[in-house]
Amino acid sequence: MIPVSSTARRMTSSAIREILKITQRPEVISFAGGLPAPELFPVDPIRAAADRVLAEHGRQALQYSTTEGHLPLRRWIAERSEITADMVQITTGSQQGLDLLGRVLIDPGDIVLVESPTYLGALQAFTPYAPRFVEVATDDDGIIPEALDELLGRVDGRLLYTVPTFQNPTGRTLSAQRRLALLEITRRHLVTVIEDGPYNELRFRGQEVETLFSLARRTTPDDDLNVIMLGTFSKVLAPGLRDAWVQGPRHVIDKLVQAKQAADLHSPTLNQMIITELLDDVLAEQIKIIREAYGQRAAIMIDAVARELPTGVSCTDPDGGMFCWVSLPDESIDTEAMLPEAVANNVAYVPGRPFYAAGERRNTLRLSYATSTEDQIRTGIADLGRVIAERLSSRPAADAPL
Amino acid sequence: MIPVSSTARRMTSSAIREILKITQRPEVISFAGGLPAPELFPVDPIRAAADRVLAEHGRQALQYSTTEGHLPLRRWIAERSEITADMVQITTGSQQGLDLLGRVLIDPGDIVLVESPTYLGALQAFTPYAPRFVEVATDDDGIIPEALDELLGRVDGRLLYTVPTFQNPTGRTLSAQRRLALLEITRRHLVTVIEDGPYNELRFRGQEVETLFSLARRTTPDDDLNVIMLGTFSKVLAPGLRDAWVQGPRHVIDKLVQAKQAADLHSPTLNQMIITELLDDVLAEQIKIIREAYGQRAAIMIDAVARELPTGVSCTDPDGGMFCWVSLPDESIDTEAMLPEAVANNVAYVPGRPFYAAGERRNTLRLSYATSTEDQIRTGIADLGRVIAERLSSRPAADAPL
Repeated sequence: MIPVSSTARRMTSSAIREILKITQRPEVISFAGGLPAPELFPVDPIRAAADRVLAEHGRQALQYSTTEGHLPLRRWIAERSEITADMVQITTGSQQGLDLLGRVLIDPGDIVLVESPTYLGALQAFTPYAPRFVEVATDDDGIIPEALDELLGRVDGRLLYTVPTFQNPTGRTLSAQRRLALLEITRRHLVTVIEDGPYNELRFRGQEVETLFSLARRTTPDDDLNVIMLGTFSKVLAPGLRDAWVQGPRHVIDKLVQAKQAADLHSPTLNQMIITELLDDVLAEQIKIIREAYGQRAAIMIDAVARELPTGVSCTDPDGGMFCWVSLPDESIDTEAMLPEAVANNVAYVPGRPFYAAGERRNTLRLSYATSTEDQIRTGIADLGRVIAERLSSRPAADAPL
Repeated sequence: MIPVSSTARRMTSSAIREILKITQRPEVISFAGGLPAPELFPVDPIRAAADRVLAEHGRQALQYSTTEGHLPLRRWIAERSEITADMVQITTGSQQGLDLLGRVLIDPGDIVLVESPTYLGALQAFTPYAPRFVEVATDDDGIIPEALDELLGRVDGRLLYTVPTFQNPTGRTLSAQRRLALLEITRRHLVTVIEDGPYNELRFRGQEVETLFSLARRTTPDDDLNVIMLGTFSKVLAPGLRDAWVQGPRHVIDKLVQAKQAADLHSPTLNQMIITELLDDVLAEQIKIIREAYGQRAAIMIDAVARELPTGVSCTDPDGGMFCWVSLPDESIDTEAMLPEAVANNVAYVPGRPFYAAGERRNTLRLSYATSTEDQIRTGIADLGRVIAERLSSRPAADAPL
């Protein structure tokens, strides 16, 4: 047997993989996936764009290209944030952005603050770099600034990873006021903020909130920014193309370029050129279509959850994105242990535990409304309601004699 | 300024980047690139395949997919080596294969043996994992087995990285007999072999030589193999699609899957499906076309080198691949220092120094014949001959008084 590294021993198969497997069984109504709705993919425009790129620039699209990414694509991303293209690095999905940021920013033992709960893909991306994760308390408005400030008085936090807008897994959004507070606190404690924004465009209700990145730039020169932002085309065009980006101060982007060159030279040229073809018209139209569809599906799910899940079960009420987050009233109920029962009843979700860096809370679960029809949502949530009700009724009464 | 990790401080901008930049200046005849010839890309078949995939399986091609890679593609790769698909991991170019192998196999301080000279992209891929590189002596038949055995008696080598067939940068091929010796020696010293085979298919002269991977399987059960092999479609179809693979024992592939999931979830679905469409007919035809073209270009270059470069300059004579390797007679000549002069004379090469892990030898250079026309090769080599001759004549005579 070939011996593996200590990093390899630290890595384990994650919940994401198992989720992807569950979602492939057709008889299961799955709210488990983090997948966008494939029936909304702009297949024909992408097909036309691929054909145009290969007809007009075939050799360029199929040749090696620069590590930083396709310049017209970087320019478009930069213009949207009123920055320059040298502040943008293209990555193979935001997962690669997180991995490369881990490589460039994390030394073993560094304290990385994460929301409680947080996106488990980020935990997985950072884990090879051996940080210590510390959870920051959140409520329905996201990270609680006072809790963050108090925590940073006690621990030497170096990085804060946050999904402030339509968070995965909770669907929650950090309020505008808290964004300013978060920036003030992290600057004061010299903490770098990694702002992950995959769902930023997917608002179906309420007022736009400015990104932390944009807010930070109002008062700070670009080279002194303490915020690095990740964006992606996975949720607004198609994830299978694997195109995303990191934007941040030049000295961080310069290091990301070096890290990416060592990691895979560059992201596929063809894919970046296809996406560039879609920026002017298809993208805006797609965002409209997706917002409308997800807004409808979210409303149906939130309504079904309110009617079908037992009393005492609570659920977030997102203004955008793909997810809502269910908390069961009894802390003794383990949603991981309940999952096989749910799947036996043809409904799937993601248990909450892997989203907690400390891994302790077991009575929560994540639901995605993105890929299900109205009928599937109603049927699946009713099934889930029965599974939860049965669990709740079969628990020993709290005051029963032992 | 955001502080960066110790890993980031270890990384630097590499020669590859600068090479790619030089090759973009149209007035320079560049033998510097590691790029395949773009005029040979099967643009029309790829265009047709992309169209077919998007027309028939658009949603699948644009959705998230499994980390291991597109199963029909993995099966095809596996069948060619008479292994099973669970011994194959798809990667975003072989550069990613090297990076993930570094992550899975290298602990800081581990001794990694490399050829002298070796592929600089591998040095770059492994460097973030902080190994100690040790050079193994080579000659025109590749690694010298006696030197390897002697070295492993002195140092605790853990990995051997080798490009045994049409090596980058030298174009040399490890002889059949030495392959058996290398396997015996590495097994005896419990060394894992990473066999990088990007040019395996590009033989234009002589007899096929069996891969180390295949030879090892003749005597060793798959789970006990000490050889891991990398293959790629970059040199036989198109590098811009970024599709390559690693094949090896299941327990290593399992760890690579976990590493890849953390690194970028999966390689683009569309690209893997496009390549799968080309395996049955286009690929074999392409290999024939490329072999013939590179064979002609190599012959012209070797001929031009013999005629145009000054006496005492030696050059390898490859049977395949994309490169030959020039050694200047005077060890005091620095090909890095000579490069600006060459570029001023509109010819470019890669200085040899970055291909040496210890970085000491300065009087060598790499030439690629893959992307140049007959005229360009004759003109460029003549120009290079003049630049070298001038250097040689301007050096102080060895016996001149100091």
